[in-house]
Formats: sequence, C-alpha cells, structure tokens
Amino acid sequence: MTLQARPLRLSTTDADFESRFQQRLHWSADADAQIEQRVAEILQAVQQEGDAAVLRLSRQLDGVQAESMAQLELTQAELAAAFESLPSQQRQALQQAAARIRRYHEAQKQAAGQSWSYRDEDGSLLGQKVTPLDRVGIYVPGGKAAYPSSVLMNAIPAHVAGVAEILMVVPTPRGEKNPLVLAAAYVAGVTRAFTIGGAQAVAALAYGTASIPKVDKITGPGNAYVASAKKHVFGQVGIDMIAGPSEILVLADGSTPPDWVAMDLFSQAEHDELAQSILLCPDAAYLDAVQREIDRLLPGMPRAEIIAKSLGGRGALILTRDMEEACAISNRIAPEHLEVSSREPQQWEPLLRHAGAIFLGAYTSESLGDYCAGPNHVLPTSGTARFSSPLGVMDFQKRSSLIEVSEQGAQTLGRIASVLAHGEGLQAHARAAEMRLKDA
Amino acid sequence: MTLQARPLRLSTTDADFESRFQQRLHWSADADAQIEQRVAEILQAVQQEGDAAVLRLSRQLDGVQAESMAQLELTQAELAAAFESLPSQQRQALQQAAARIRRYHEAQKQAAGQSWSYRDEDGSLLGQKVTPLDRVGIYVPGGKAAYPSSVLMNAIPAHVAGVAEILMVVPTPRGEKNPLVLAAAYVAGVTRAFTIGGAQAVAALAYGTASIPKVDKITGPGNAYVASAKKHVFGQVGIDMIAGPSEILVLADGSTPPDWVAMDLFSQAEHDELAQSILLCPDAAYLDAVQREIDRLLPGMPRAEIIAKSLGGRGALILTRDMEEACAISNRIAPEHLEVSSREPQQWEPLLRHAGAIFLGAYTSESLGDYCAGPNHVLPTSGTARFSSPLGVMDFQKRSSLIEVSEQGAQTLGRIASVLAHGEGLQAHARAAEMRLKDA
Repeated sequence: MTLQARPLRLSTTDADFESRFQQRLHWSADADAQIEQRVAEILQAVQQEGDAAVLRLSRQLDGVQAESMAQLELTQAELAAAFESLPSQQRQALQQAAARIRRYHEAQKQAAGQSWSYRDEDGSLLGQKVTPLDRVGIYVPGGKAAYPSSVLMNAIPAHVAGVAEILMVVPTPRGEKNPLVLAAAYVAGVTRAFTIGGAQAVAALAYGTASIPKVDKITGPGNAYVASAKKHVFGQVGIDMIAGPSEILVLADGSTPPDWVAMDLFSQAEHDELAQSILLCPDAAYLDAVQREIDRLLPGMPRAEIIAKSLGGRGALILTRDMEEACAISNRIAPEHLEVSSREPQQWEPLLRHAGAIFLGAYTSESLGDYCAGPNHVLPTSGTARFSSPLGVMDFQKRSSLIEVSEQGAQTLGRIASVLAHGEGLQAHARAAEMRLKDA
Repeated sequence: MTLQARPLRLSTTDADFESRFQQRLHWSADADAQIEQRVAEILQAVQQEGDAAVLRLSRQLDGVQAESMAQLELTQAELAAAFESLPSQQRQALQQAAARIRRYHEAQKQAAGQSWSYRDEDGSLLGQKVTPLDRVGIYVPGGKAAYPSSVLMNAIPAHVAGVAEILMVVPTPRGEKNPLVLAAAYVAGVTRAFTIGGAQAVAALAYGTASIPKVDKITGPGNAYVASAKKHVFGQVGIDMIAGPSEILVLADGSTPPDWVAMDLFSQAEHDELAQSILLCPDAAYLDAVQREIDRLLPGMPRAEIIAKSLGGRGALILTRDMEEACAISNRIAPEHLEVSSREPQQWEPLLRHAGAIFLGAYTSESLGDYCAGPNHVLPTSGTARFSSPLGVMDFQKRSSLIEVSEQGAQTLGRIASVLAHGEGLQAHARAAEMRLKDA
C-alpha cells in the first residue's frame, strides 16, 4: 500500500467548520497516573539516598556500566575531543549557529535585561537590579531524539545572562554518547556535564547530591518522565515550560512555491505523530497544489511514516475567505511557529497577536529558525503563546526591586502608607511608617 | 500571663549555629490531600456546569444570596460609588499610591517591555515583538485579610502593560463588601469585577462560563484552596507565583533607632503566625536593644498575639562576625523583603545577590514599599528569589520572536541549517532549508 499524507481539508464557509476545526485542534496533556507514581518514587529515592540512587537508577534504566559518580561525569577534555572529532563542516556549522544565537541573545539582554533606576522629587531612589541565576541545569534528551541544537538554545542564553555554572545532563543509553551533543556543549560553554537522564537527573539537579550541586533552575525538553519530574520539583527550583507537541501554522497568500510550503509542513510533522501542521490560505487552487506536492514529496522522505501519521491525524489545509480571516484564526490558535508565507508579510505581521515565533516571507523557513537564525527555538506550545514567551536571557536572570527612601521621601510616603495600613487593619505597618515622620 | 515575643537568639560563632539556623528557616508547603481532592471536584463542577456551579458554590461556601450571575457582578457605578463613599484622606492615599505604582511600572515597561529588532549583514531581520495579554484575572481575598493594596499591585502593572480586560474576583462572605477594595479596583482601572472567590472563582476565570469570560492569566494571593486551584489550572492559563509565608530580613549595622527596627520586624510578623522576621547584626548590644524595644512595644500592638507567635516560633536575632558575613547569610536565605538598615546601604547593596525587594537605609521601612513607594509588593518567597522576580509589567506581556530572512540570508543560513538538520536525522528540516538555496 502506498503511504499517503492527507491533512484534513476544511473551509471556513463550511457549516460545520467550527466543530471540525475545534476537534482537530484538541490535544490534552493528560497526566499518566502510573508515570506520576513512578516519578514520585524516583524523586524520593534521590532525595534520600543521593548519589547511590542516581547510580543505581542509571544502571537499571539506562543500562550504563558505572561503579562511581565520577564515571558519570564528562570532562571538559571529553567535550573538546568530541568537538575535534567532528567533520569540519559540522564543526563550522555548530560554531556559526552558536555565534548567531549568541548575538541575538546579547541584543535581547541589551534591550530587556539591564538594571535601571530613577529618583523621584524627594530624592528617593526606585529601580530594579537584574542579576544572573547562580547555577542552572540543562536537560538534554539522549537516545533517538538527540538534538545538539537544543544544547545551544538552552545553554547560550544562560551563558549570555551571566550564569556562572551551567550543568548539562544527558542520558547515554547503554553508554552510547552522541558526539554532536557533546560538541554542542563544548561550543555553548557548558560548565559541567553528566551522563544521567530521566527523573533521576531532574531530582539530582533539584535537590543536589554529594557529586551534583543543586541548581536554581532546570530547563530543556524531555520525555513524559522528565516532564512529570520537572512539574514535581517546580517551586523547589525554577523550570521552563512543559512543552506539548510541536506545531506550525503557515499563512499563505499563494505566492510561495507550493513545494516549499509542503516541505515546511513536513519539517514539523517529522518530529512525531502528534505534531501539528496547519496551512491557511484564501486560494483553493493553492491548497490543491500544496497537497499535490505533499503527495509527490512524501515517498522521498526518510521519516515518511511519521509525517503521514502526523499530517493525516492532526494536519489541516484550511481555505479562508481572505488573509485577514487567516490572521484572525491564527490568533485563536496562538501557534508555536507561525510562517507568514506571503509577498508582503509586513502587511500581516501587525495583525498577528499570539505566536511563539513569527517567520516572515517565503525565504524564512521554520527550519532556519530552528537551527541558526538567532532567536530561540524553545517556544510556547498548545496555545500558551497567549500568555508565555520564547526561552530567553530573562529566564536566566532574576530581578530585585531597589528602594532607597530619603528622609524627605519618608514624610511623603509615610503619610500615605499610614492611612492605607490602618485601612487594612495592619497597625505595625502603620507605626513603622509613622515612626519615620519628623513630627512623630 | 504577659505576652512575650522572643525571637531565637543565635550567633554565627555558636558551634551548633548551622543546624539551628537551618531548622529555623525550614518551612514546607506540603499539599493537603483533602484540599486537593475538594479543589479537583470544584474545578470539574465549574468546567462542566459553568455558571450554575459558580452560583451554587458561592451560595454554599460564601453564604451569598444570589439567584443569578448578574447579581454577582459589581458594576463600574458601584466601584465608583465605593470610592466616593470613602473619607477624603483614604481617597487621596489610594490615588497617590496608585500614581506612584503606575509611574514605577511605566519606567519598568520603558526599560524592559519594548519591542526591538536589528538587521544582520544579509539584510535579515531578527527581533522580538512585545504585546500585552488580552485578558487577565486578578484574585483578591475577601473576609478578614482584605487588602486594597493588593488590588493596586496586581491591576496597575496589567493596566500599564496594556491588557485590554482586567477582571477582578473577590469573595464577599455573607454579602459583605469591603469599600476600600472596591475603591482600589476603581482607581486601578479594573474592567469588570465579580463577587466570587475560592477555587470556583479560579475555575471560572480559567475555563470561562457563560457570564465570565476565560482569561489568559490569573494573578493574586489566596488561601490554600485558591493556591491549589491555581496550580491545577496552570498550563491552561498562566499564573503568577504560589506564595509561601511572608518574610523580612533586616541587615543592621546598629545605626538605626532600635524601635524602628523592632517595628519593622513586627510589621512582617503581624501578617500571620508563619511569617518570618530575622535580624542580622554584628553588634550584640544592638540586638539586646532591639529585644528591649520588642518587649516595650509589643503590648501596644492590636495584633500582639500574632506577632508574639510569629517572632517566637519563626523569628531570629542573629549575631554575625561582621556586615560581610551578614550579607553572605542573606544571600543564602534569598529573602522576600531585605532591609539594609545601615548608614551606608550602598556599600552593601552590591554584595546582595538574591532578594525580592531591597530596602536601602533606615528611612526605607518595608511598609513604605508595601503600599506606595512604587515597586510591586508581590514578591518571591521561601528562597525563590534565587530564580524568580517581583510581579511586574512583563508578567502581563508576552514576547514573540520575529524573523525575516532575506534571499541572501537564506543562502547563509540554509547551509548551516542543512548540516545541523542532517546531523540530527531530520531530513525534512534540511530539505526545507536546501530548497531556498539558489543552486538547489
């Protein structure tokens, strides 16, 4: 049987559009009780036994042969050697990508990550001091989905923020190390790296063990065990988002070669069967052309089976009345990746209110952003772009308010605070303000 | 029996300092399984039955007499009337506080909340677009802890960020409305207000009902039910932090009148019995003097009983070797509120790396910051200042990456992306980049 990839075909003028559209969007991150239970046990074991539990679980679950924690640490020399072992093309690509990612995040730090203050009429100082986190942990998946680009995208913003210690954990199932991942750690400025993974790695980073220091924040993608463990330790340490399946939404005016758009839909779909690729276009003939390119290109793709399942199960080609309606639907979806594949993308950009990253124009394929354009590829999924943002420098900084009230300021503020504190029934608050009044 | 407030007296040179210090700091937010269960039921009821469940639960749990949801909404006229009903001193204090909070958050938006972009050598555009959230919900506790200042501190940053709809929910046990809270909502620019509370109010905001529109984010303090409900709906909507007991740490060099410091410790302790007040000072005689002021001032405090329990159970006066050591201990605690009650606070400020808000100098009592200095009083507790920040304008904005790759840029980036994508085994990613190459 020939493999087929048939995204759902919809039109916004269909009578049942709304319900079929909603159904296609639906995805729920139902927690698996068995996973939750197992993760709780692992976390407790690491909290109580430390290194011993990490060692035991790494042997049991990852099949690594290690008698001591020292054997589970990668030296800087090993990271450097992994980098040196790569073909020069890969070395260069890693370094060029890293340089561009670094430049973008430096611009971000400059724009939004600086301390500031002002003085009011009474000479009181008000401001905000921005400081890097002390120590962070980066989780990097091992095994079949080993992504060196994730190492760059997590470690470089931390490095630019000024984090002193960047710990990386990466499982090495049966001892198998991915040289590109190790090389990326070298290029990105990872401080220490451990070949551990799963909930036990998250626990070690969150609670600390004799060998692995406790971090302030854990970022990076992982499987269901890792996601559950991150949720559990949240509060104890900071975490980044818990990501759902990856998504792309393409808004097309019909001017982009249809094979480019077909391949962009594939590049999302090839991640996994739950990934979602949606194309919105006001031109029915163009949707037909893209479907033809999907059919033509699919057989040549090594991951054709995953692509076919993803596009067939969750993909959609949607005919809209016009580009304005396409933008409005995009805002309802708040996609992780949003391609505006149009001759005049700047015309539509102001209408786009919710998206993790917006890719403007036919040349801006999502994959360029995934690897090397500069902005982060860790983006809010499942509609959370309505209220959350790409990973960035600010996720590796924290802010402290600064207040220095002058003697004169204490007179102005003391009177206001006293009235409001009495209004709330908090008399010590009122008295503390009143004691600073000259006529007290 | 005379009421006594005896904070634990420690010295960093004590042989058992470390263990006694750790013990005093210890606090754990253990989830109560019964509360969790009840909250899950309430969330489910509101998700399934909408308004009917909100009405029923508000009658049952808050004892409000209401036959329809319309009766649970406060009109703008009611908010305005509450403001007009206040004594002029309270009206003025609310307005002055709001003006100062607004000014600070406008400075914050200017410093860190703006869109930016640059073009690289190939003419590609890289940047970040900053947009306000569409609709947010502010939870305001009712009953005994009704704090109008919290309304200002949550709603004003949202307003400054440009959030179009700011919904407030505030329970009114047995129908009792707090005019200061309603007046604060009027002053802060709340769009709609509902007299509902508890987990049912959080559920209504997170899922939406026929009468209450679904929001993108929920902020604001609440009891254990509210905290549990916020944790449950996190992901569905954004939330601010889940706060632990409030804390103050005072670093004193002995130059501040000891009664001022005693009252600052009280103003934290009076919140509740679990609140923590700690004083660090290198001068033993000064610690004695503060204890004497505590003893002298306590009987005059209306909330003396809470203060005594809080200081006795969780407070500490700690003798340090010097101010440097005091700063180092403060960094270990990462306190919510940090007063540097010193003649030269600017000397110590650079040493202070982790704190929600830093209050510099003897005139800067925490209570001035709580009400009206300008910075936000919603601050990270329980050591989370190591990785999180005060509530601010950025919590009511989200950022989208902007990428517009030029034809030339697609040549530069396409080659890098192709190498890395093949390295990760993601051939559709590689092909999408390669298709944009001129020599493709």
